[in-house]
Amino acid sequence: MHQLKKPYLLYLGDAQDPVNAKTAFGLRDWCRSDVLGEWSLPTAMVSVGVPRLSPSAAAAQGAGSLVIGIASVGGALPMQWLSDIEAAIHAGLDIVSGMHTRLTSFPSLVRAAQQYDVQLVDVRHSDIPFACATGRKRTGKRVATVGTDCALGKKYTALALTRALRAHGANATFRATGQTGIMIAGEGIAIDAVVADFVAGAAEQLTPDNAPDHWDVIEGQGSLFHPAYAGVTLGLLHGSQADAFVLCHDPSRKFIDGFPDFPIPDLPDAIRQYVQAGRVTNSAIRCVGLSVNSSSMTDAEWHRYAQQVSRELGLSVGDPLRGGINEIAQALLATSTT
Amino acid sequence: MHQLKKPYLLYLGDAQDPVNAKTAFGLRDWCRSDVLGEWSLPTAMVSVGVPRLSPSAAAAQGAGSLVIGIASVGGALPMQWLSDIEAAIHAGLDIVSGMHTRLTSFPSLVRAAQQYDVQLVDVRHSDIPFACATGRKRTGKRVATVGTDCALGKKYTALALTRALRAHGANATFRATGQTGIMIAGEGIAIDAVVADFVAGAAEQLTPDNAPDHWDVIEGQGSLFHPAYAGVTLGLLHGSQADAFVLCHDPSRKFIDGFPDFPIPDLPDAIRQYVQAGRVTNSAIRCVGLSVNSSSMTDAEWHRYAQQVSRELGLSVGDPLRGGINEIAQALLATSTT
Repeated sequence: MHQLKKPYLLYLGDAQDPVNAKTAFGLRDWCRSDVLGEWSLPTAMVSVGVPRLSPSAAAAQGAGSLVIGIASVGGALPMQWLSDIEAAIHAGLDIVSGMHTRLTSFPSLVRAAQQYDVQLVDVRHSDIPFACATGRKRTGKRVATVGTDCALGKKYTALALTRALRAHGANATFRATGQTGIMIAGEGIAIDAVVADFVAGAAEQLTPDNAPDHWDVIEGQGSLFHPAYAGVTLGLLHGSQADAFVLCHDPSRKFIDGFPDFPIPDLPDAIRQYVQAGRVTNSAIRCVGLSVNSSSMTDAEWHRYAQQVSRELGLSVGDPLRGGINEIAQALLATSTT
Repeated sequence: MHQLKKPYLLYLGDAQDPVNAKTAFGLRDWCRSDVLGEWSLPTAMVSVGVPRLSPSAAAAQGAGSLVIGIASVGGALPMQWLSDIEAAIHAGLDIVSGMHTRLTSFPSLVRAAQQYDVQLVDVRHSDIPFACATGRKRTGKRVATVGTDCALGKKYTALALTRALRAHGANATFRATGQTGIMIAGEGIAIDAVVADFVAGAAEQLTPDNAPDHWDVIEGQGSLFHPAYAGVTLGLLHGSQADAFVLCHDPSRKFIDGFPDFPIPDLPDAIRQYVQAGRVTNSAIRCVGLSVNSSSMTDAEWHRYAQQVSRELGLSVGDPLRGGINEIAQALLATSTT
């Protein structure tokens, strides 16, 4: 399991477009108290609005890691970022990256990290060995976010649900399974990078025994209806032994994103299939709400849609970015017995 | 994808019990024409009944690989086998192992392999990068073996079905997804060793475009009902885009082997769930037969069981080790249109 050193200095490289700085904005929005500041090249055009700090100044304030908060074209590490990264290493910061290209593939970074005794952490990769799943029932409670497709709000929903549960006085922990989530949480497992045999086992390790009234809120990955990633989704759901799940959905999508031959099932069928799949490791699994990415709708359309779907499914419906998902958190707590 | 050099010399080490030599017996039974002979230490008590040949004699007869045909306690490579393995390397043979311990973890073997320009092939591992699945419909036809549990005959069924299809004049290829299967086929992918994100993509690569009347017979892995391995099963099924499947079952098992809290569903439900899962990438998927591991039954019990289940499911029922599964092959061909 990845364990990151907080607080963070966010690195924005030579970012020209805020769209490419989604990771940095996500860290600012979801773990602001862990972000000391940001740093970038003089050519950068993007700021996330936190104090500008050089790596050495951040280190002097107690920073633990420089986090690369920007996606590069093609996922490679641009050579012009290297001097800033090396400066951060010299200042004693760990370097955290979610890029495809591993930090450890740069001999100069590896040498510097050894010399200054810091870690190069590639959160997209997962070289740690995991055990196979045991299926043993664990103490504590677990809720998973699952989706009708990829990339429609499962991480955001899990983060918002964790906040809403805490606001209701519940004991809840966000459990990260993807790179940005791991950076936000400061720990987690890039579940899609685990060797297939150990996915469910890694999910078990991510959500260990806990207090009876504690909720793990597990960031979902992929979708049961995705032709490439459904196996990851299923292994994660099984290892999570989820007591409940929130289905995440974007009504504007009729087909799996990028796979026009693969339709998204209707919502009752999607819920039924997730319940059936989850029952393998938790016979009591239930759907407690629908989290909608309603960005394609006007306010009027959204209200009409939410009311209609809530009535049809008999479930709380919310959009974490439009009114929040507090009702889903309430529904989860109301239907739970300790 | 692993590609092995045939023909083989089987290595039996210091085997004391035929049970531990299942791989060697499997190779003798399923690719006898690729087996030149066997070799072992003087203390070995097991033979698979093929000519005894030293590595150098086998090499002189054209052998391509020494295949470790015996499982060691704990999956490690016993030191007393090393001199035989090194002798095989010196004779110019590739070394093929399905053990957990990698051949490449022994510096002396790595050095010798470099010196003599031979390969060390660890078929249990899968270090080759794969692409993500595309979901693109491929030409040719595919049948998968799937199971109500692990380790109840999916490989054996796939091999027997391939033979039966060929006996009917069909063009069929066994597609190996596990270590012993890979050794038998001489190629394949250890699918459970693939990084989770790429399982479906690896299955696509394993079963590429083919002639319209060609059948890939895909060795299944795990089970959709297994708390640890269902994700592997699903990714493999999705990437296979199976037109048909044979369900493998052992009626003596009421629970997943080693997981007494996890019941095996009844057969109609198991078939329904595999059909539902397979429909994500092939809407026409159908079950064409039930392959039974009937080793727990008397002949009378087996005949009664087979008749009853065949009537209840409306499917051909067979045991590859007891009367064969020719009827299942016929059912597959009878219900297929080119």
